[in-house]
Amino acid sequence: MTEPLRLGIAGLGTVGTGVVKIVQRQARMLADRSGRRIEISAVSARSRDKDRGVRIDDYAWEDDPVALAKRDDVDILVELMGGDSGPAKAATEAAIKAGKQVVTANKAMLALHGQALAEAAEAQGVSLRFEAAVAGGIPAIKALTEGLAGNAIHRVMGVMNGTCNYILTRMDSAGLSYEEAFAEADGLGYLEADPELDVGGIDAAHKLTLLAAIAFGSQVDFNAITLEGIGSITIEDIRRAGDLGYKIKLLGVAQMTGRGLEQRMTPCLVPSTSPLGQLEGGTNMVVIEGDAVGQIVLRGAGAGEGPTASAVMGDICDIARGARLPVFGQPARSLAKPAPASAGAPTAYYLRMELSDKPGALAKVATVLGDNGVSIDRMRQYDHPGANAPVLIVTHKTAWPDLDAALTALPGTGVVTGPTVALRIEDV
Amino acid sequence: MTEPLRLGIAGLGTVGTGVVKIVQRQARMLADRSGRRIEISAVSARSRDKDRGVRIDDYAWEDDPVALAKRDDVDILVELMGGDSGPAKAATEAAIKAGKQVVTANKAMLALHGQALAEAAEAQGVSLRFEAAVAGGIPAIKALTEGLAGNAIHRVMGVMNGTCNYILTRMDSAGLSYEEAFAEADGLGYLEADPELDVGGIDAAHKLTLLAAIAFGSQVDFNAITLEGIGSITIEDIRRAGDLGYKIKLLGVAQMTGRGLEQRMTPCLVPSTSPLGQLEGGTNMVVIEGDAVGQIVLRGAGAGEGPTASAVMGDICDIARGARLPVFGQPARSLAKPAPASAGAPTAYYLRMELSDKPGALAKVATVLGDNGVSIDRMRQYDHPGANAPVLIVTHKTAWPDLDAALTALPGTGVVTGPTVALRIEDV
Repeated sequence: MTEPLRLGIAGLGTVGTGVVKIVQRQARMLADRSGRRIEISAVSARSRDKDRGVRIDDYAWEDDPVALAKRDDVDILVELMGGDSGPAKAATEAAIKAGKQVVTANKAMLALHGQALAEAAEAQGVSLRFEAAVAGGIPAIKALTEGLAGNAIHRVMGVMNGTCNYILTRMDSAGLSYEEAFAEADGLGYLEADPELDVGGIDAAHKLTLLAAIAFGSQVDFNAITLEGIGSITIEDIRRAGDLGYKIKLLGVAQMTGRGLEQRMTPCLVPSTSPLGQLEGGTNMVVIEGDAVGQIVLRGAGAGEGPTASAVMGDICDIARGARLPVFGQPARSLAKPAPASAGAPTAYYLRMELSDKPGALAKVATVLGDNGVSIDRMRQYDHPGANAPVLIVTHKTAWPDLDAALTALPGTGVVTGPTVALRIEDV
Repeated sequence: MTEPLRLGIAGLGTVGTGVVKIVQRQARMLADRSGRRIEISAVSARSRDKDRGVRIDDYAWEDDPVALAKRDDVDILVELMGGDSGPAKAATEAAIKAGKQVVTANKAMLALHGQALAEAAEAQGVSLRFEAAVAGGIPAIKALTEGLAGNAIHRVMGVMNGTCNYILTRMDSAGLSYEEAFAEADGLGYLEADPELDVGGIDAAHKLTLLAAIAFGSQVDFNAITLEGIGSITIEDIRRAGDLGYKIKLLGVAQMTGRGLEQRMTPCLVPSTSPLGQLEGGTNMVVIEGDAVGQIVLRGAGAGEGPTASAVMGDICDIARGARLPVFGQPARSLAKPAPASAGAPTAYYLRMELSDKPGALAKVATVLGDNGVSIDRMRQYDHPGANAPVLIVTHKTAWPDLDAALTALPGTGVVTGPTVALRIEDV
């Protein structure tokens, strides 16, 4: 057996503590599987004295994560502090410069600075691995980068924010309003300090852009993502979508189109009977579609101490076993910079509107849609106690500019009262 | 870029042809991802002249796969002939002896000779990889061996024979008898030349034993598997199970118990709403449960040219990138030989029987069950035109020896007409 592999862990929150526990509990198993003992040399965190339920007295302590990263007795910096820049980025850069391997769970840092960090790591010949940054315990980065390396990837999709999926599931199953479900998730401690990271889709979008970079051999480009959170989803839309056989999910989609690379993180309808539609609560799902393999679906816990620490340990074991791989699956300097697709690929849309209950109202709507090239697949008008009739329309596949023009023209009919809700129906 | 990686492909059936197509079509992408060009030096198959829809004239031809394996211009033997011994094993052994890497899709060979082959490969310092041997295109071996290496595995489960799942799904959805669904699958070309490999569960059991070896650090032990095919499953059981909220699947389960390593490939009931219960047609699913990660579910095509070739290419790219890993995730000589568990872990059971319609009949059955320590969770008696009443019972968790004793005693009641069907309800 070769020399032990020595970790320096920066950040002892939930995930860092989870990693310490696994290293302590499974020392023998990890050595059997890795061919090397895996040891912790040093740790760094905000508070040295906090009771974390694990013993850290045997490890050297560093107040400064940058100092930790440079220590002679550290082979791998395990960066679990979070934050897209600041100490996390400084420690990562210092580790790379010092020729250390890096394992991180930091999706924000990689979504914003992934290209520069990857180039730096590859220039130094060190690994920078981030399985834990995407979909928690699901080995999705590994599946995409390694297991499916023989595939030209057509599309990557994912439900990758458990908090959003929890809120949407609770609205559906318990009939809660968005505000009620949000408050419930908050009470359970599911929300980030800045909840917009969750419900605004930002956290999930960070993850999507990392998957997209690997899938399409392109530079991480977080700013190119079309981003829309779940804050405007109503219980009414969840119920109506259900009537039509769909669930509403905050769904990330990345695909290469003739017009460039499409990256979207938006609420979408998916068939209730599909694996994505059946995904409830805080569970995550990643769907990968390749030219040879067809569709692969990966499902598991997207957050939490154990699952995230499991992903970190997978990366550490890979390094212990000698795996060396470009950060995004091919050399960072060879990654392309595809233009962002200005709109999503044509798709069916769900439209919900209210019409004044006058003869010919529906005909006027149908005419405006038709004039703009939007054709109707299904239409349903509901009973209504008041003067306005709720109407649902499912369109045939429509290019967004056509639908956009139709939505702009609808108020001009004089029969549409209030705003029209339009949501993509993703073909999964 | 380093030297090209040169393949010798033995076997040009569906999968071999699929690999040739990917290597030809995706040369640039594979080189970008692997850091090396991947080339085919030589091929071997039964017939040189068969039209396979791909051009093989540029590759050297060998009639003898053993000669192919030894060629100086071959770095990796890609063994896609199949067969648990014979030419496949001879070529694999020759390749290892000559210091070549081996990639194979041969589950039967590994299930029966995996330990010896792994020891030979590791003694020579070469890789022997087999992602394509288990669950087709799903990167399940990689997820278990690498991505989840930080987990003590509690249980591995899988629906890994698409033909069986197709037959059971068609019985359920179209109300076909087993014989009718079997004939349909046969007509579609889904069955192996020896159908017992499929419907007898042997093919799926080969796969299970490979997963079990990795999961539990144990030597492959195919003969220790409790094996039961789907031939005795009736449409009546599928309907009754459905009434109770279950689907019947040919489910593989491997778990370490206090009584040894349990490996079963048997028809089981699983909840209709679970991912396993929702799996229809020829799709495969592998479920991995670890102490840190919780439950990970992997789903995808389990067979066919593209998916299986995708798995082969994943292994080839890993080798091109320099990955070196023990065959079963830890050195073969360190693998344990756990005793096989003599019976499955205690579980709920589904029982179906017919009772003569006499007063007290049900009480007699309940008494026999209770006397043997089997407690009833749910019971349902159906309307019946004839003299015998169909009765379903779902038990609480029961140890198999208790149930076995009860089943033996039931005929003695004088009220049970005909055999009692007993199927495990797997807690998924």
